[in-house]
Amino acid sequence: VTPKITILPDNTSVSVRRGTLVREALERAGIAIIYPCGGKGRCGQCRIRFAEAAPKPGSSEQMLLSRSELKNGYRLACRAKIERAATISVPQEVRQAPEGRILSSLGKQVDVKPLVRKIFLILQPATIQRQHSDYDLIHSALRSRGIPITDWTTTALQALPSALRRKDHSITVTLAGTTCIAAEAGDTSKHLVGCAVDIGTTTVAAQILDLNTGKERATVALLNPQSKHGADVISRIQWVRENPLHLRVLQEEIVACINRCIEILCKRARVEPGEIFHLVAAGNATMTHLFLGVTPEFIGVSPYVSAIREGHQFKTTELGIRLHPEAIGYTLPNIGGFVGGDTVADMLVAAIAESDALRCVIDIGTNGEVVIGNGQRLLATSAAAGPAFEGAQISHGMQAGPGAIDGWACDSRLRFTTVGDRPAAGICGSGLVDIVAELLRAKGADASGRLQVPKRAGPSVGIRCLARRIEGSSRGVRLLVASKAEGAKRNIYFTQNDVRQLQLAKGAIATAIELLLMEYGAAAADIQALYLAGAFGNYIRKNHAQRIGLIPQLPLDRIHLIGDAALEGAKLVLLNTEYRDAAERIARQTEFIELAGRADFQDAFAANMSFPSQ
Amino acid sequence: VTPKITILPDNTSVSVRRGTLVREALERAGIAIIYPCGGKGRCGQCRIRFAEAAPKPGSSEQMLLSRSELKNGYRLACRAKIERAATISVPQEVRQAPEGRILSSLGKQVDVKPLVRKIFLILQPATIQRQHSDYDLIHSALRSRGIPITDWTTTALQALPSALRRKDHSITVTLAGTTCIAAEAGDTSKHLVGCAVDIGTTTVAAQILDLNTGKERATVALLNPQSKHGADVISRIQWVRENPLHLRVLQEEIVACINRCIEILCKRARVEPGEIFHLVAAGNATMTHLFLGVTPEFIGVSPYVSAIREGHQFKTTELGIRLHPEAIGYTLPNIGGFVGGDTVADMLVAAIAESDALRCVIDIGTNGEVVIGNGQRLLATSAAAGPAFEGAQISHGMQAGPGAIDGWACDSRLRFTTVGDRPAAGICGSGLVDIVAELLRAKGADASGRLQVPKRAGPSVGIRCLARRIEGSSRGVRLLVASKAEGAKRNIYFTQNDVRQLQLAKGAIATAIELLLMEYGAAAADIQALYLAGAFGNYIRKNHAQRIGLIPQLPLDRIHLIGDAALEGAKLVLLNTEYRDAAERIARQTEFIELAGRADFQDAFAANMSFPSQ
Repeated sequence: VTPKITILPDNTSVSVRRGTLVREALERAGIAIIYPCGGKGRCGQCRIRFAEAAPKPGSSEQMLLSRSELKNGYRLACRAKIERAATISVPQEVRQAPEGRILSSLGKQVDVKPLVRKIFLILQPATIQRQHSDYDLIHSALRSRGIPITDWTTTALQALPSALRRKDHSITVTLAGTTCIAAEAGDTSKHLVGCAVDIGTTTVAAQILDLNTGKERATVALLNPQSKHGADVISRIQWVRENPLHLRVLQEEIVACINRCIEILCKRARVEPGEIFHLVAAGNATMTHLFLGVTPEFIGVSPYVSAIREGHQFKTTELGIRLHPEAIGYTLPNIGGFVGGDTVADMLVAAIAESDALRCVIDIGTNGEVVIGNGQRLLATSAAAGPAFEGAQISHGMQAGPGAIDGWACDSRLRFTTVGDRPAAGICGSGLVDIVAELLRAKGADASGRLQVPKRAGPSVGIRCLARRIEGSSRGVRLLVASKAEGAKRNIYFTQNDVRQLQLAKGAIATAIELLLMEYGAAAADIQALYLAGAFGNYIRKNHAQRIGLIPQLPLDRIHLIGDAALEGAKLVLLNTEYRDAAERIARQTEFIELAGRADFQDAFAANMSFPSQ
Repeated sequence: VTPKITILPDNTSVSVRRGTLVREALERAGIAIIYPCGGKGRCGQCRIRFAEAAPKPGSSEQMLLSRSELKNGYRLACRAKIERAATISVPQEVRQAPEGRILSSLGKQVDVKPLVRKIFLILQPATIQRQHSDYDLIHSALRSRGIPITDWTTTALQALPSALRRKDHSITVTLAGTTCIAAEAGDTSKHLVGCAVDIGTTTVAAQILDLNTGKERATVALLNPQSKHGADVISRIQWVRENPLHLRVLQEEIVACINRCIEILCKRARVEPGEIFHLVAAGNATMTHLFLGVTPEFIGVSPYVSAIREGHQFKTTELGIRLHPEAIGYTLPNIGGFVGGDTVADMLVAAIAESDALRCVIDIGTNGEVVIGNGQRLLATSAAAGPAFEGAQISHGMQAGPGAIDGWACDSRLRFTTVGDRPAAGICGSGLVDIVAELLRAKGADASGRLQVPKRAGPSVGIRCLARRIEGSSRGVRLLVASKAEGAKRNIYFTQNDVRQLQLAKGAIATAIELLLMEYGAAAADIQALYLAGAFGNYIRKNHAQRIGLIPQLPLDRIHLIGDAALEGAKLVLLNTEYRDAAERIARQTEFIELAGRADFQDAFAANMSFPSQ
C-alpha cells in the first residue's frame, strides 16, 4: 500500500501512500521543483516523466501537455498521483536551481542574495466574488511565499495594471529589499543584471554581473576623466574650493564615465541598460562625495571631515546614471576622510573582520591605505604615498597599459616583460619595484638610496651586467632600463630622482604599517596574512616588495596579492546584502588613526625612507 | 541650605540645594525651556530674569547678554546657579510650547504630530580629535534627543556641508519619518507648512496648514478641470479606455489644478511653495488613480478592481507637484473601486472606527457612499446616486455657487435664500431638498412623486400659497420656484422630471443604508449617530432630508452635518501620523458590500424611490 518511487537521475527512492501527489512525493524526497502557478495545474511547467505505467492524465494535463508528451509518460507533478511503484524522471529545467553561489578570489563560497531580485508569478485573476486589487493579488502571492513587501514606487504602480493583464496574469515583479520597483508582463526573471564599480582616482573599473547566478558578464576599465583637474584627491578638492560650480563639473565627468562604462559593458554582454537594476560603487571618500554631488572640500582642510561616512542608497536616475529608471545605487561607507569605501571593499575581500588572527590589508593606488586588525579590533590609516607606484612622477613612468615594463631583471643578462608584449614605452609600478630590488641586490643603490656603479667584488656576472647599465650623465647617475636596441621604443632610464620618489612612497606605506602595529601592540611577525591590493598588486613580486622594504619580512605564503579588490568588494556587496551589512559594520568599527598628528611619525618616516640592508 | 525658588508668572515654588543650576530647578518645578545649544552656554537663548539679587554672571553670560540685560537681572538658565531664595521670571518665548493641538470639527482634540517635522540644532564643530563627519554630528545630536534617523535623501546630503557651516553650525534638519529630507542653515523650524487636498470629481478643495501649530493658513476650492471629459468617474474611465494617452491628459489636468490651488494658497498665506514639505490627498479611487498616473480603467469593468487600495507615499516632484523638491505626498487608501480615500477621510472625521455604538456616514457628492458600523465591524458601499444633489441633471439646477437657491420655504408666503445673497440663478442641493420637502408637506407631490395641485382641504394658507405656484404647461406640471418679479434672474422652475431625478438619487442612498443595515443585522433606529458629509452637507435641513426619505427617521440630535469631511480627514492625516495608520487600518478592515449583486437590491430600490407618507 506504500509504493516505492525512484527518482532519476538522482536515483533516490521514497515510499508514499497510494494516491499521493507526485509533488508531495518529490518534496518528501527533497527534490524541489518550480511551480510558477503555485501548483494549481494552470501553467503546465512542472513536467516530470513516468518511465512506465504513467497514471491516467487528468483534464488539465490533457490540456497543457501534447499528445506525444502524454504518450511518452509526461505528467504534471502538481496533478499526477502515485498509484503503484514507479520510476520518475525529473528534468533539470523544472528543478529549482540550488541557490546561486560564486567563489571569491580568495576561494570563499559566496551565496548570491542580492538586494534586488525578480520574482515571477502566475496569478488567479480577481473575480466579482474576490475583488482583490492588482496590488493585493501580488501581495498575497508574495506573502504565501514568505516574501515581505512594504512599498511600491510610483512608476511600478503605474506599470502594474497593464503588466498584469498583458500576459494573462503572469507577471514578474522586481523587489529592492521590500520595495517593489518594477512590474513587467510575463517571465522576465532571467533578465536581472547588476553593476559593480570601482571609482578610482585615476581609473574607473566596472563589471556587470548576472544577479541570478552571480556570473560576471563583462568588465571594463576607463581613465577617470576628472584626472585633468588634478592627479590626486587633494588637487581635485582644491579645484572644487576655487569655484562651487566645479563640484558639478566633476560630478558630471564621473557620471559620464560610468555611463560610458555601462554602454561598453552592455554591448559586450548583450544586455540592455534597462535590465540593470542595481549598481554598487566603491571609491575613496573624495571620489564617493564627488559621485554623489556632495562637496568634498572639508575633507581637504582641518579637521579633515567628510560630509558622510555611512553608505548611501539612492535612485541611480537621481545622479544621471542610465540604467533601469528605478535602479538602486549604493556607495560603500567610508572609514574616514582619507580611508574610503575602496578600503572597506578590500577589507571585505580579505575577510579581515571575520578573522581571529592578525591580518593586514594594503591598498596602493593614487594614495595608499593600510589596515591591520581582526574581528576584535581594526585600525586604519592613510599613507601619503603619492602616485609613484602608478608610474606618476617617475621620469619614464607610466600606468600599467600596453608597453609598460611590468617585470625587470638583470642578472646574467637583461630580461624584461611588457604589458601586452608591446615594445617597451615606460615603466609601471611592478617594474619599478623590480628595478629597485635588482639595484639593491647588485649594490647599484645603497641603503640610503644613492645610485652608484657597483664595485666589481668578485666574478658575479649579474653584478657586472647591471653595472654596465649605470651611467653618469650631466643630470646625475642613472640606470639604462631598456634601450632602443633591446626593443624599447626609446631609451628608458631610471634616475636618482626616481629612486627618491619610490623611497618616499614605500616609506610612507612602511611607516603606516609600523605605526599601526605599534598602536595595536603587535609586531610585524604577528601578521598572519597580508593582502596587497591595487592596480599593480596583481603583478608585483612579493620578495621584491619585501626587498625594497615596502612590506614586512614575512614568510611569502602569508602574502596574498588581491589585485583590484575594491572592484571585487563592490561585487560582493552587489551580490549579497550580508556584505553590505558587513561593510557598514566595518566602517563604523574601524578606528581611523591620524598619523600626521603623532609625535613619532617624522622619526619613523625618516627611518623607513632607507632601504633594508641587503 | 535649600533656598526656595518662586517661578513667575506660574507662581509655583520649588526648594533646591544651594549651587543648583536654574535649569535643574526649573525642571524640578516642571517648567520646560528650550535649550537650542543643548544647555552648553553657547547660544544665549535660555534667558530668565531674577527679580532681585541675581547671582554674579559667568563669562558666557557676560558675552551673550547685554550690559542692561545683566543689570536687569537676566541670566542664562543653563549657567546661573541658585545661591539664595529667589523669584525668577521665565518669559513665554523661551518656554517649550505645549505640543500643538487642534480641535476637529466635531470638537475632538488632535495632537499635532505630522510625518514631517523640522528640528533646529546648534552643534559643536568637529575637531582634529573628534573627526565626526557632518552626518555623524547630526545623528548624535538627534540620538541624544531620542529622535531616530535612518536615511538621507541625496539632495539633503548635498545641502548638508554648506548648510552646516553657513551659520556657524546652527542648522535645521527636516525629517519625514526617519528620513532626513532637507538641511537648511540657521533656524528655519518655523517655516514648515503642509497641504491637505480633497480631490473631488467636480471640485478640488485645498488647504495649507502650519505643521508646527496645526493652524489653517488658507483654503481654496477650484473646479476639477477633468470635468470637461465627463461629469462622473465612469465617463472619465470610459475616456481613458478610448486612448491610453488620455490617462496622461487627465493626470496633467489634476496636477495643474492642484498646483494652481497651491499658488493661490501660498499667495494668500504669504508662504513660499518651498516651505511646504508634505501633501496629503483624499479622493475617490478613480481620482486617486488618475492623480498617481495609474490607469483606473479596470475599476470600470467587471470585476471592478482598482490597481491599488493601499495608501501611497511618494515624492511630490515625481508627479509634477510644485512644493519643496523633497516634499512627501500621500494619498489616502481606498476601501474598494467605488469607495475611496474620501470616504475613509469622512470615517476619520466621524471617528466611526473608534466608536462602540453603531454609526452611519453618508457622503453625497458626484457619487454617494454609505458606511455603517463601529469599532467591531464596518460595512461600506457606493450608491449610484448620480449628481442630482450637486444640481446636475435638474432643469434649473446649479452648483452651490453665487445665486444658487440653497434654502426655500413656502408656507404663509414664499421665502428663499441664495448663496452670497445674489439674485437667484438656479437651485442647488439643499434648495432642492427644501422644495421637495415643502411639496410633500403641502401635498403638492404625492408619495409616488407625482406633482399635483394640492386639494384645498381646509383653510391652510401655506398650502394655498404653494398651490398657486404649481402650473400645468405643455411640458407637464411644474412648480414656479422663484420668478423674476420675486428677485430671480429669470423664472426658475422645478419640474416633474426633476422630482424623478431626486427620487432616483435619494432612493439609491436610502437603499444603500437599508441594505447595509440588513447586512449588519441592525435597524435604522439602532444608529446612534449619523454623519452627513459632502459639499451640500453643511446647508441641508436635517428634518427635510428626513421628510424626503434621504436619511432614516432618527432623533435630530443624532444627525451631524460634517460638510467637506474629505478635506478635514486629509488634514487630520496631514497633522498626525496616527490618523494615517488609522486610515490604513480602516481601509483594510471595512468590508465592501456590492449592492448590485444582491437579489434584494431591485425591490429595495423600487420601494425607496417613493417618498415616505407624510
